Amino acid sequence: MPFLDITSPTLLLNTQVCRANIKRMADKCKRLGVGLNPHFKTHQSKEVGNWFKQEGVERITVSSIVMAEYFADAGWDDITIAFPVNVREMDRINSLAERVKLSLFVVTVESAISLSTLLKHKVEVIIEVDAGYGRTGIPVDITDRIDKILGAIDAAPQLSFYGFYLHAGHTYDVRGKQSVADIHQQSLSGLQVLRKRYKTTYPHLKISLGDTPSCSMLDNFDGVAEIRPGNFVFFDVTQATIGSCSFSDIAVVQAASVVSIEPSRYEILVHAGAIHLSKESMLMETNDGERDVYGLICQLSHGSWGEPLEGCYVRKVSQEHGIIRMDKSLFGTFVVGDVVGILPVHSCLTADCMGGYLTEKDEYIRMMNWRR
Amino acid sequence: MPFLDITSPTLLLNTQVCRANIKRMADKCKRLGVGLNPHFKTHQSKEVGNWFKQEGVERITVSSIVMAEYFADAGWDDITIAFPVNVREMDRINSLAERVKLSLFVVTVESAISLSTLLKHKVEVIIEVDAGYGRTGIPVDITDRIDKILGAIDAAPQLSFYGFYLHAGHTYDVRGKQSVADIHQQSLSGLQVLRKRYKTTYPHLKISLGDTPSCSMLDNFDGVAEIRPGNFVFFDVTQATIGSCSFSDIAVVQAASVVSIEPSRYEILVHAGAIHLSKESMLMETNDGERDVYGLICQLSHGSWGEPLEGCYVRKVSQEHGIIRMDKSLFGTFVVGDVVGILPVHSCLTADCMGGYLTEKDEYIRMMNWRR
Repeated sequence: MPFLDITSPTLLLNTQVCRANIKRMADKCKRLGVGLNPHFKTHQSKEVGNWFKQEGVERITVSSIVMAEYFADAGWDDITIAFPVNVREMDRINSLAERVKLSLFVVTVESAISLSTLLKHKVEVIIEVDAGYGRTGIPVDITDRIDKILGAIDAAPQLSFYGFYLHAGHTYDVRGKQSVADIHQQSLSGLQVLRKRYKTTYPHLKISLGDTPSCSMLDNFDGVAEIRPGNFVFFDVTQATIGSCSFSDIAVVQAASVVSIEPSRYEILVHAGAIHLSKESMLMETNDGERDVYGLICQLSHGSWGEPLEGCYVRKVSQEHGIIRMDKSLFGTFVVGDVVGILPVHSCLTADCMGGYLTEKDEYIRMMNWRR
Repeated sequence: MPFLDITSPTLLLNTQVCRANIKRMADKCKRLGVGLNPHFKTHQSKEVGNWFKQEGVERITVSSIVMAEYFADAGWDDITIAFPVNVREMDRINSLAERVKLSLFVVTVESAISLSTLLKHKVEVIIEVDAGYGRTGIPVDITDRIDKILGAIDAAPQLSFYGFYLHAGHTYDVRGKQSVADIHQQSLSGLQVLRKRYKTTYPHLKISLGDTPSCSMLDNFDGVAEIRPGNFVFFDVTQATIGSCSFSDIAVVQAASVVSIEPSRYEILVHAGAIHLSKESMLMETNDGERDVYGLICQLSHGSWGEPLEGCYVRKVSQEHGIIRMDKSLFGTFVVGDVVGILPVHSCLTADCMGGYLTEKDEYIRMMNWRR
């Protein structure tokens, strides 16, 4: 009965749900003949990483040099840092490239030139492109920048061109399979144009992409060599709302002690605030109209948890405080001293806040510590 | 030239600005004859705590049992946990109450009864009240609940009633001294009513309050025994916008490497995302209209930084990415490989994300680690 002994804020991990999420994605990739190069930024844990290894995964994606070093130390030897290369970190990149097969993202001519000048060991270069998200990546129609980067890569003996990557993060802003499919089609079209343009010169170039909604909901990956989703390992309220998963696929929940009850507002106060859940919110329709929601509420039982309680949500977080607005009919569900479950809006950020997980087997899994 | 060697995301602390913030508040309290019982949740550091000690501070406020333990280990022996007591943590509370003078917040009859039953050592009880914020605390007009709590306290030999505390967190939602003063007056009035009602039975009851805007901007603390502000140690963009400080009083800035430039959008991409800055935003008027802003931009120099650059702001953060929208006229200010300064919207959360500070003397100050 591990979950019942909780005193302070604790992030619970149901390992069976998590492993089922991993297996489902691995099976799908095998079925479709698409490579799986999962992003490990969500779980940041070598223990969870091993569950991927057991499904046949051999190559991984991370989001920083410190995360790459951590997983290299854990035995992974084919690692992509899926973040535009930071040339100020060249010493660490050099050291890592000496001991693992390293792939780096390049989006500017300047960083391609820096790599060609400063890098001593072989790396593969992935050019990140963008077909509408607008966060990072070279817009697919700005091919003169791509050409210049390829020129710098070709001129450097230690650099080889791997291919193009695209992260369609705007699938997070839509709802339902058709809307996700529309964005995905836009991504595929953009990537096809690039492939057609560059395949004569680079016949082995590979296309990869990575958002969890597309990778979870869709089956059309024509021309895509591998996918790099990350969040699906845990899922969260955002993914359930988009339609990538059901609520029962969410593998992590924040356990929070009830410290106060305010009957005049149908509210309960718990110890789980912005430093535990993160300050990520999503607009949802609630009993009080459309509101920013910081988590949904569920009941914890022996090692597991239930579906979200209808009409109950975290309406506000400050540093350590979480305020839960209860549906009137459910207001008596919790009393002072109980432990409530909060399904996170964005599990990547909640996990990073908490730094580790308590499993249903009462084992504590510590994540990597990127903090200095 | 410590700041110029930065490679990975780093939170910079200007110790001179920070110590001036501490001194200004300590001097003000001496001048007004009000006690200073500062909240240490913002800095979470024994080194920074020592700077308070040097200004004569002897009593401190924290927001969790783990933070109380950390500062007790650092030598502080009069500690208030300013968070409604979590009765599931009674073992740790008991241990701590044995070795320091401990004050606890109570807001429910249930937790008062739990304390009276389970607590083995003497503690002082502070009743948190609310005059309009709506986060926590007993609404000042619900005196029957206060009476019941006082009944439980009086019946328990190890408990003594210290007084009332009020956190007017809604001062964060207004702008300018007059608006803050209006809320503050509402707080003072609510507290006066309570004092009048209870002073005959409890002649030594003390009133305290704690929001940084009121404590920084106002001089009227009639009837207030002590103030418990926290954020003023660093300040941030929120406080500068409210009017609690000027931008030059902000003592921390996030250093972030420029990894990409997107001329078509006048944007630069930096390595500093939601896990570094937190996902706290504030609505601000920008060149693009009213937008959610995740930080303001400044230039770093040898150990210090300048005022925010007009028209430049962090428009979006994802896990590790920060996207800065630049004013067109300033677009050329930064190139790939530069380090940019980001003034945080909410320094408490940014500090908690980062776990420590690099000072202008090139010393690294590690914060407490509340993560398991």
